[in-house]
Amino acid sequence: MPKVVDHDARRREIADAALNLIAESGIGAVTFRGLSSASGWSAGVFSHYFKDRHGILAAALARAAELSAVRQRAISETLQGRQALEALLEEELPIDKRRLALTRVFVFFYAEAAADERTRELIDTHLRRWRRLTEAVIKEAQAMGDIDPHLSPAEAAADLVAFVDGLSVQALFNADLLHRIQRSSPVRAWVHLLRAPTQ
Amino acid sequence: MPKVVDHDARRREIADAALNLIAESGIGAVTFRGLSSASGWSAGVFSHYFKDRHGILAAALARAAELSAVRQRAISETLQGRQALEALLEEELPIDKRRLALTRVFVFFYAEAAADERTRELIDTHLRRWRRLTEAVIKEAQAMGDIDPHLSPAEAAADLVAFVDGLSVQALFNADLLHRIQRSSPVRAWVHLLRAPTQ
Repeated sequence: MPKVVDHDARRREIADAALNLIAESGIGAVTFRGLSSASGWSAGVFSHYFKDRHGILAAALARAAELSAVRQRAISETLQGRQALEALLEEELPIDKRRLALTRVFVFFYAEAAADERTRELIDTHLRRWRRLTEAVIKEAQAMGDIDPHLSPAEAAADLVAFVDGLSVQALFNADLLHRIQRSSPVRAWVHLLRAPTQ
Repeated sequence: MPKVVDHDARRREIADAALNLIAESGIGAVTFRGLSSASGWSAGVFSHYFKDRHGILAAALARAAELSAVRQRAISETLQGRQALEALLEEELPIDKRRLALTRVFVFFYAEAAADERTRELIDTHLRRWRRLTEAVIKEAQAMGDIDPHLSPAEAAADLVAFVDGLSVQALFNADLLHRIQRSSPVRAWVHLLRAPTQ
């Protein structure tokens, strides 16, 4: 019987291999050859599934967004109040290797997104989803008296998402900031400021 | 007598012309030809002073950082307390065309900074300067009782700078966020949260 290859699964495996490599060595390490020596697959495998390096990076971006969406959904279903809000935001800080790869691949595409409609849509969709989930968690936290009811949930969500994104991006350029973020999350102090006045 | 050209002044004029064009039409519009038709200078002028398009964009980045430093220094010398802090932060939000160009040119170089040491240094120097000035303004505001004395000025400064940077970058991908920022600055509500407990 011929070998059956699940093409979607293989493309996902390649995207995961690229994210691992990005976490270890940065975006520059992602080439057909670099991926080949890191994963053990032949370079032909990559060129069979992707036109070029850029195609693999785009798949890694989409995969990073997908993985982050899965984890954030799980957080919003298991935690609540300010604790849920903190976890949801910290999910996108470069605290460990997985999240460092997420930040690196997003920053790589930020410049492109300013010029290219499709990339912008992918990034904007990711950010909208993250904001929506954050807004829902803030509303829930307000209903249980854990966050100031006078806050606009939509605006607070957009601001907190921007804050975490800004921290993540700047941590790529500044090792001190990266270490501080990895030592103790700055998100907690800011979320604490949003507590309900009676607390 | 031969015409005397002040080369530094000319390079600065070209960088300013590039920033105007970036504000009007985005990074993609900056080419020798695009600059020529926007400014009236011949394309030969640009190729005399810059090797290529990238060289002009790098000069625009350095010029944007320089202009912003001048304005922020003036703010820190004329305003004080939370008002100074707000103005210092809003100086880098894409509220008007000048600041939109600043955001666009920085985002363009963010991806490059992850891979290129010189670009990273330029961006990191800009961010460090901005954080230092913000930290000084926070200390002063604490001394006059305008900001909670328990806050770490260095950490609050780093967080606020990251917040503003994140808002600016995300506003490039999302017209709703850009309009909200231009309508009313989100910075004020957050700075208000930092007020001294007795206020």
